Amino acid sequence: MLVDGRPYRTIWLADASGDVAVIDQTRLPFEFVIRTLRSVADAEAAIRDMVVRGAPLIGVTAAYGVALALRESPDDSNLAAAVARLIATRPTAVNLRWAAQRMQQALVPLPPRERVARAYAEAAAIAEEDVEACAAIGRHGLALLCDIAARRARDRPLNVLTHCNAGWLACVDWGTALAPIYAAHAAGLPVHVYVDETRPRSQGAFLTAFELGAHGIAHTVIADNAGGHLMQQGDVDVCFVGSDRTTATGDVANKIGTYLKALAAHDNGVPFYAALPASTIDWSLGDGVGQVPIEERSPREVTHVRGRTAGGDCIDVEVVAPGSPVRNPGFDVTPARLVTGIVTERGVAQASRAGLAALYPEHARP
Amino acid sequence: MLVDGRPYRTIWLADASGDVAVIDQTRLPFEFVIRTLRSVADAEAAIRDMVVRGAPLIGVTAAYGVALALRESPDDSNLAAAVARLIATRPTAVNLRWAAQRMQQALVPLPPRERVARAYAEAAAIAEEDVEACAAIGRHGLALLCDIAARRARDRPLNVLTHCNAGWLACVDWGTALAPIYAAHAAGLPVHVYVDETRPRSQGAFLTAFELGAHGIAHTVIADNAGGHLMQQGDVDVCFVGSDRTTATGDVANKIGTYLKALAAHDNGVPFYAALPASTIDWSLGDGVGQVPIEERSPREVTHVRGRTAGGDCIDVEVVAPGSPVRNPGFDVTPARLVTGIVTERGVAQASRAGLAALYPEHARP
Repeated sequence: MLVDGRPYRTIWLADASGDVAVIDQTRLPFEFVIRTLRSVADAEAAIRDMVVRGAPLIGVTAAYGVALALRESPDDSNLAAAVARLIATRPTAVNLRWAAQRMQQALVPLPPRERVARAYAEAAAIAEEDVEACAAIGRHGLALLCDIAARRARDRPLNVLTHCNAGWLACVDWGTALAPIYAAHAAGLPVHVYVDETRPRSQGAFLTAFELGAHGIAHTVIADNAGGHLMQQGDVDVCFVGSDRTTATGDVANKIGTYLKALAAHDNGVPFYAALPASTIDWSLGDGVGQVPIEERSPREVTHVRGRTAGGDCIDVEVVAPGSPVRNPGFDVTPARLVTGIVTERGVAQASRAGLAALYPEHARP
Repeated sequence: MLVDGRPYRTIWLADASGDVAVIDQTRLPFEFVIRTLRSVADAEAAIRDMVVRGAPLIGVTAAYGVALALRESPDDSNLAAAVARLIATRPTAVNLRWAAQRMQQALVPLPPRERVARAYAEAAAIAEEDVEACAAIGRHGLALLCDIAARRARDRPLNVLTHCNAGWLACVDWGTALAPIYAAHAAGLPVHVYVDETRPRSQGAFLTAFELGAHGIAHTVIADNAGGHLMQQGDVDVCFVGSDRTTATGDVANKIGTYLKALAAHDNGVPFYAALPASTIDWSLGDGVGQVPIEERSPREVTHVRGRTAGGDCIDVEVVAPGSPVRNPGFDVTPARLVTGIVTERGVAQASRAGLAALYPEHARP
C-alpha cells in the first residue's frame, strides 16, 4: 500500500546482497523509518522488539531470518540453530513456528550449497502466499461492501468501523480486515473508516490511522468507548475486524474490546464481519469463550501510554493513579452468534461449524 | 471519604473568615493539593478550569461563590453580577444554574446586611442536601449489593464494575455510583471494584482509582475494552454507573462507553444499575437515544493524553497518528431495557416510566 505516494510492503529484499528491509513499526506513527536486517540476529531482534508485528509478518520475517543465517553458513547445525533461535523470540506466535518449520523442512533435504538460494525463494513464496490470501480476502470483502452500499443512500461514503490493526502493517500487504477497504478504495467505492484507538496499546490510533492516512483513505479516530454511540446514531454501516484465533464453530478471538463492538453492532442491526486467513482457524476448538486461553499482558501497558511530547520526543507517561492495581487481558472472544460472517481467502462463510466446513471440507469432521 | 486516613469533603469552609477550600482535581491523581477560594473570581476560575468538576460539586462551588461575592459587597448589583458570572463559567451545566438561581432567590428578598450570613447558610444547605441524597443512594444501593452477595459464593469479594467517576470527588461526599460501595465497605461487606480507565479523559484511572485507593477500597483499573471479557468470565457481579441525564422512561445518558458495558452486562446476566439523584431526571424526555443531545467535545481529548513523566512532570503527549481526524462524543445513552434498576435517594426504581413515577408521583403525568 502507499506511503507518501509510493507503494510499500512491510518486508522486502533491500538489495542483491540479500539484506532484508522492514518498516520499523515501533517508530510509527510519528516517524517512518526503514530498518535493514543483515543477520539472523537482526531478524531475531526485529521480532522480539516488535519492530515487526502481526502474525503473518512475523512469520515472513522469521523465514527471511533463516535465509540470512544460511547466508553466513548453510550447514545443518547453523540451520537448526537459526530455526530454534527464531522460534524462541515469541514463543506463543503460532505463525512464527509454522514459517520457521516450513523453511526447515524445505531446506534440510538439500545439499548446503543449494540452501541459500532456496531459502530466499521459500521466504519469498511465504510472503507471496500471504499477499495472495489477503488480496483474496479483499476481493470477497469488497463484494460485501458493494452489497451494503447498494442497499443504502449514496449521500455519504460507506462507513466501516474497525478495531485494532488488521491492516497491511500486520501482514505483508493489503491486510485482513482492512483488505476490503483498500479494495473498495481501488474500485472507486467511497469508503470512510472509524478507527478505534484500541487501548491499551493504541494500535488503532498509531498503526491503522497511519496506514489509512498514508494510503489516502478517509478515516476518523475515536476512543474505544465511542463506537456504540455511533452505531446507535446510524453512523456505522458495517464492522470489519481481524482475528487472532477462530474456532471451528466461528467464535472469534481478537484484540480486547472486539466483543463490545460486536454486541453494539448486533443491538443496532449493523453487520459485523471477521476477516481472516484460514491459518487462524483452530479446527480443534468448539467453544471460544471456554477454550481459548486469554493472555494476561503487562500492567505497564495500561498504567503507561507512549506518546509524542510537544518537543517531538516519544516517551512513556503514567496515566493511572499510582499504586492502583491493573488487569490487562489482551484478547476477548466474540461468540459466533454475534458474527454476521467470516471472510476468508476462499470466500464468506457463515460463522458456524457448517459454514466453515462448507468452505474448508478438508477440515470438516467426518 | 478518607485521604491519608483523614476524612475529607470536596468543598468546605477553610476558616472563620469565610474562605472556601476545595481539592484541586486537576492535580489528581499524582498530587493532592488543597486550593483556597477567597473571591467570586476564584470560584469562577475553579469551575472554569475544572479545579472542581461533577455537577453537584459545581453547583455547591457556585453557591459558595455567591457568598464570597457578597462578602465583598452585599448590594443588589453585586449579587446579580456574581450570579451571572458564575452561570457563564460552564453554560451547559444545569446544576450550576439551578444552584446560583436558588441562592439568588433566597438572597434578593433580604436586606443587604443579612445576606452574607444567609448566603453561607444556603450554600451549606445545598452541600448538606447533596451529601444526604448521596448517602441515601448509598443505603439503597447497599441493600442491592447485600442481596447479590447473598446469592453467590463467599469465596471472594463482591466484584462491582464502574465507568468514569461518579464518586465523592464529583459530589460533596459519598458520590452516586460509588456511594453503595463506600456503604458496603463501611458495613463490612467485602467489595472490589473494576474501574474502567474511561478514555478520553481518564476519569476512571485518575479520579475513581484515586478516591477508592485513598479510602482503602480494593480495586483494579482496566482498559475500557476489557469489561466485556471480564463479564464473560464471571468476574463481575454487578455494574454501577452514574448518570448525567435520565429520561422519564429510564433511559440513562452517561459518559461515553457506558452503553457498551450495559450491553455486555445484559449479554452475561450481570445486573446493571444507574445511581443518580432525582435532579438528573428530565421528566420532559421520553426517548433518550432520539432526544438527549450529545455534546461533541474537543478532538484534543482524543489526540492527547495527560500523564506523568519519569521525571515527575505532568504533560500532554500526542497519541494519534498526526493528521488523522477525530470524533469525540462525550456521552452515550443506555436504553432502559438494558438497565436493571435506577437507584435514587428515594429507593430503587424500575427503569421505566411507571417505575420512576411510582417513586416520584409528583412528576408523574396526569
